[in-house]
Amino acid sequence: MEFELTEDFLEQLKNAVVSRKILYIQDQMNELLAPDISIILHELDMHEAKYILQLLDKEFSAEIIRELDEDFRKKFLKDFSSEEIADYIEFIDSDDAVDILNEQPVRIREEVIDLLEDETKANHIKDLLHYDEDCAGGLMAKELLKTNLNWTIDQCIEEIRRQTKNVEKIYSIYVVDNQDKLLGRVSLKKMLLADDNALIADVYDSDIISVESYRDAKEVAEIMKRYDLVSIPVVNVHGKLLGRITIDDIVDVITEQAELDIQMMAGISNPIEEDDDIWTLSKARLPWLLIGMLGGILGAKFIGLFEADIALIPAMAFFIPLITATGGNVGIQSSSVIVQTLAKETSPTLLTFDRFFKGLLVALINGIVISGVVFLINFLIGEATTLSIVVSTALFCVVMLSSLMGTITPILLSRFGVNPALASGPFITTANDLLGLGIYFSVAHLLYSNL
Amino acid sequence: MEFELTEDFLEQLKNAVVSRKILYIQDQMNELLAPDISIILHELDMHEAKYILQLLDKEFSAEIIRELDEDFRKKFLKDFSSEEIADYIEFIDSDDAVDILNEQPVRIREEVIDLLEDETKANHIKDLLHYDEDCAGGLMAKELLKTNLNWTIDQCIEEIRRQTKNVEKIYSIYVVDNQDKLLGRVSLKKMLLADDNALIADVYDSDIISVESYRDAKEVAEIMKRYDLVSIPVVNVHGKLLGRITIDDIVDVITEQAELDIQMMAGISNPIEEDDDIWTLSKARLPWLLIGMLGGILGAKFIGLFEADIALIPAMAFFIPLITATGGNVGIQSSSVIVQTLAKETSPTLLTFDRFFKGLLVALINGIVISGVVFLINFLIGEATTLSIVVSTALFCVVMLSSLMGTITPILLSRFGVNPALASGPFITTANDLLGLGIYFSVAHLLYSNL
Repeated sequence: MEFELTEDFLEQLKNAVVSRKILYIQDQMNELLAPDISIILHELDMHEAKYILQLLDKEFSAEIIRELDEDFRKKFLKDFSSEEIADYIEFIDSDDAVDILNEQPVRIREEVIDLLEDETKANHIKDLLHYDEDCAGGLMAKELLKTNLNWTIDQCIEEIRRQTKNVEKIYSIYVVDNQDKLLGRVSLKKMLLADDNALIADVYDSDIISVESYRDAKEVAEIMKRYDLVSIPVVNVHGKLLGRITIDDIVDVITEQAELDIQMMAGISNPIEEDDDIWTLSKARLPWLLIGMLGGILGAKFIGLFEADIALIPAMAFFIPLITATGGNVGIQSSSVIVQTLAKETSPTLLTFDRFFKGLLVALINGIVISGVVFLINFLIGEATTLSIVVSTALFCVVMLSSLMGTITPILLSRFGVNPALASGPFITTANDLLGLGIYFSVAHLLYSNL
Repeated sequence: MEFELTEDFLEQLKNAVVSRKILYIQDQMNELLAPDISIILHELDMHEAKYILQLLDKEFSAEIIRELDEDFRKKFLKDFSSEEIADYIEFIDSDDAVDILNEQPVRIREEVIDLLEDETKANHIKDLLHYDEDCAGGLMAKELLKTNLNWTIDQCIEEIRRQTKNVEKIYSIYVVDNQDKLLGRVSLKKMLLADDNALIADVYDSDIISVESYRDAKEVAEIMKRYDLVSIPVVNVHGKLLGRITIDDIVDVITEQAELDIQMMAGISNPIEEDDDIWTLSKARLPWLLIGMLGGILGAKFIGLFEADIALIPAMAFFIPLITATGGNVGIQSSSVIVQTLAKETSPTLLTFDRFFKGLLVALINGIVISGVVFLINFLIGEATTLSIVVSTALFCVVMLSSLMGTITPILLSRFGVNPALASGPFITTANDLLGLGIYFSVAHLLYSNL
């Protein structure tokens, strides 16, 4: 029923592309739905993906493009001319069209809009380009069904018959006055039950919840959730109907928000995607690692204040909190990324090694930066050289191993049917504390006896 | 537009209840929507809530009951007779009716079902009682619109006119054969555009995604998200149409899932609600605190293995990781609960003190248990008494203060417009590490010089 991508399927498809088995590819693809094909395209080279897409019907291809992941689509569409992109945009609702065009360079964006044959669509898109993507205006589509308050049900049905060609899904018919001011809605249910000659004014529902275009996407999501809405009209400050937001976009907002919260809990400062490049991933993780590291240094200095009390402690004891805190932070960062990936996973067996190797590279960069900065600070504050070497070496190993632990634990838990989110909690922190202490004291033991 | 509950409004309403201003209450309530009134009822005493509800129209009251929080509703309906509950259930869709009845004692549940006048509804409810609430069957409603494959559009519209009275919202019309086997769907859009004499068989869409009743709720959510569905039909293993799941229920599943993940990240073992009693809250938090504590003790023992190397360290250094880890765990637990509460918050100014006091009580219990168990273990492994007192005293203070920090930080962040989820990350861990070390060494300094 729902499609599950297998490695076998992917291999056969890639072979079909190589040997140009056009009919085979078309048959295979036409049995699937657009979201499924978008999942497949993500696993292919750009030229393979383009080859397959161009074998399909334009409207269907447009739908597939709409479903692609933002980052992938940005790279993917680089290979297409403005004319080709415009051909697809003709079939895409204004809200999604704007999202796609906003990913393009300004020149391409303007060329595509100029090339659109459907003038209404071009105007819709130009209207929507103003809005920030995190507000109601940025989420709304201009395509909607509306009816004048003074019409009869019959007139309204005729008008819907005309309008409906442009509107993908019908949820509500909005009722407006002659100035396009939103007055209410009529449900299709009411229209079916009412007399054909009844006036809209007699059957419409004036209790309508709308949002102003400037409202925050999160607020819109809260409102739609609270009132169980599948669509919500968007108005300007004067109450004029501008567009509508549908629940599928709000489900995305809710999901992204939950992800963002979890990333925040994990100390990742920018919203990142698992398939961002390693620099982006490193940069998003470093700020909190650095702050945690500074905290650890402050902690070490603080213990140092009690040096007289704790007498003949070898100075390395000061760095215990630094080691454990860094291990904990790295572990939670790594595991929360894996947890998110596992939750979104459509093909868990694919590319596991690449992903794993990428995780190690990110850890390598972060480990070098963290241990380097600590070494520098220790040098600046005049810490003994041997101790500085011990601390930085241990810190590097802790970052690498905690990252490894944070990557492997959720994968193992998930394989054994346990919720991998478990691995982002105190479990990994506690394990990493012990691991960190083990590494730290082993390194110290080795280095002090050999230097 | 959307309702925001203020303390003023609440006070006036409570006064109106005391002075029995029936018309005032009815006027106020009839201006609001059911989800808003459910929010108000949560802030009232049970008898105030019941008084208000009974002043309203039965259908509207039923809708309000449907919107109430599970725990609140369970207590609230205790005050109602089975006859009264049955009167409300008549107006509630089968999926929500089952949820409400499942909260009731078996006797009440059976009485209510027997009392239902609408026999179809009674049968629907009996059908649904079998299903686990976390599977597709447990999410579906029996109310749906269906049409036979062999009908004309006109016949179908007539049938819909008849069926639609029982169906709250129309998203899709399902197409079945004579044995009720699901064959596809017709969109209302297609029906409006097609000739009245056309056959359903000619216009219906056989590409339909359905789920079997045993499928996991999370899987259903993933499918509806992937394919942007607002409703999905549920079938039995033979493909017979059983019911439909609507997106509002799936939005709840997604939200609950995100909450559960965050709770897991925070080391809370059972799904808890902010308004559970303090024992439940304590019990849900303790397991990971104990494991973290055990880890801390292991860490202390591990450092102890290197006693010869680190020479004359006073033994208290061993407990540094225990102190910092406990502080971190407690801080993240407290803050993540507050973060969730803030995210769901409808009236942030209400009951803040109660909530705060409750948080302190939870911390008190956990602090006593943790420091008590550590004291016991230290006694059993023969640790020096003075050191044991130092560790347990410090641990108790750390639990209390970290919990305070974890509670206050997200509230402050949120007041200053910063996402409070920030407070559950390494920020609070780092701050709590320093706090913990400060407490630990201060307590040790004081006690060692006075004992």
